[in-house]
Amino acid sequence: MSADHPTILCTVDVVLLTLIDGALHVLLQKRAADPFSGVLALPGGYVHAQEDRDAADAAARVLREKTGIVSPYLEQLACFAGPGRDPRGWSVSIAHVALVAEEALRAVPAAAGAEPQWKPVARLPVLPFDHRQIVARAVERVRTKSQYSSLPVYLCGERFTLPQLQAVYEAVLGEPVNKVSFRRKIDELGVVEPIEGEFEAGGAHRPAQLYRLRRAFRHALSVSGRGLGG
Amino acid sequence: MSADHPTILCTVDVVLLTLIDGALHVLLQKRAADPFSGVLALPGGYVHAQEDRDAADAAARVLREKTGIVSPYLEQLACFAGPGRDPRGWSVSIAHVALVAEEALRAVPAAAGAEPQWKPVARLPVLPFDHRQIVARAVERVRTKSQYSSLPVYLCGERFTLPQLQAVYEAVLGEPVNKVSFRRKIDELGVVEPIEGEFEAGGAHRPAQLYRLRRAFRHALSVSGRGLGG
Repeated sequence: MSADHPTILCTVDVVLLTLIDGALHVLLQKRAADPFSGVLALPGGYVHAQEDRDAADAAARVLREKTGIVSPYLEQLACFAGPGRDPRGWSVSIAHVALVAEEALRAVPAAAGAEPQWKPVARLPVLPFDHRQIVARAVERVRTKSQYSSLPVYLCGERFTLPQLQAVYEAVLGEPVNKVSFRRKIDELGVVEPIEGEFEAGGAHRPAQLYRLRRAFRHALSVSGRGLGG
Repeated sequence: MSADHPTILCTVDVVLLTLIDGALHVLLQKRAADPFSGVLALPGGYVHAQEDRDAADAAARVLREKTGIVSPYLEQLACFAGPGRDPRGWSVSIAHVALVAEEALRAVPAAAGAEPQWKPVARLPVLPFDHRQIVARAVERVRTKSQYSSLPVYLCGERFTLPQLQAVYEAVLGEPVNKVSFRRKIDELGVVEPIEGEFEAGGAHRPAQLYRLRRAFRHALSVSGRGLGG
């Protein structure tokens, strides 16, 4: 390349979020190499021109290789770019946000990267590069989108009751949700279906119907014109 | 760079939109160099590591150098990336969307790039790379965001009446807007102010108050929790 356009470092980073004890947590790993070797950071890596078909493909590959996790939901967040964010030079990170249910993590095989550490997004350690800013933007995106879509369903296990789903929405949004408008919204989005004959025993309560994500939405969102506040 | 991460082409493209005769138009220019020399395309160019502070800065520079235009509103749209979009190799375009008022274009000095051609987004010519997809995504972003924000104000001239502003919203959204909820929304957003003592003579009608964008919003959006439909 000419002096006019010297090499730009082109990477992807993944903000993988899950709910643990009702709080959003992000996956961090100790970096295996410099810069910032041994420091907790988002899983990330270079785009591999030989194998990646696009940016989302690169992000999914990096996540899989470093953590063993295949997320059912992976979305491009934004590009973070500039001369100051990486000591190696002018760099672009095509940042992605991904969601996974905590229960799905139990079956994840060991991967090449360091042991994943889940940290609450509200109490992050000091992060290298602009990773703190990337995490903040990801959380903001997930919160905004959750108002209008089925996004939080990806944080649920395979089977859940409607009160459990509501609790997941409330945890993501960080505020209580009105039960009536929540039920109406979920109906409208049409993403979940009752599992015939399956109930959760509710102790003193009436057993609660179990639901699951409908097949058509396993890898797609349903978006509504009106938010939960409406 | 090692074989593991060969050079990725890192570029920016700008979708600059304006309203002409009540329809969204996009700025295209004939490309000065291969690939696709002489073909109409979005203004774009390489990131210049020596001078660009970030992606938005690169996009503003490319737009200014090629078209002479400095847009009051420039936002990152998304990264378009992959091995197939540019014949030169695996490439990343950090695409941006920008808005400008038609009347502001009259004062634009000549620039280095080919003569700008404004084409209606609803009737685009064949475009090289994935520029058609980039334009479509930009129009979708502007439409969605206009439901909830002051974004279309950037398409107005310096002074406008509320009926003119409503017509701009309607042109962007592609549908009529209820006058009462429109006035309420504009009030709520708080981005425009009446210009004291200035009215537009309305022929048979009562003269209409002229408004302008408030200073604090010259380069920022106001966003509301509720859309125009609410």
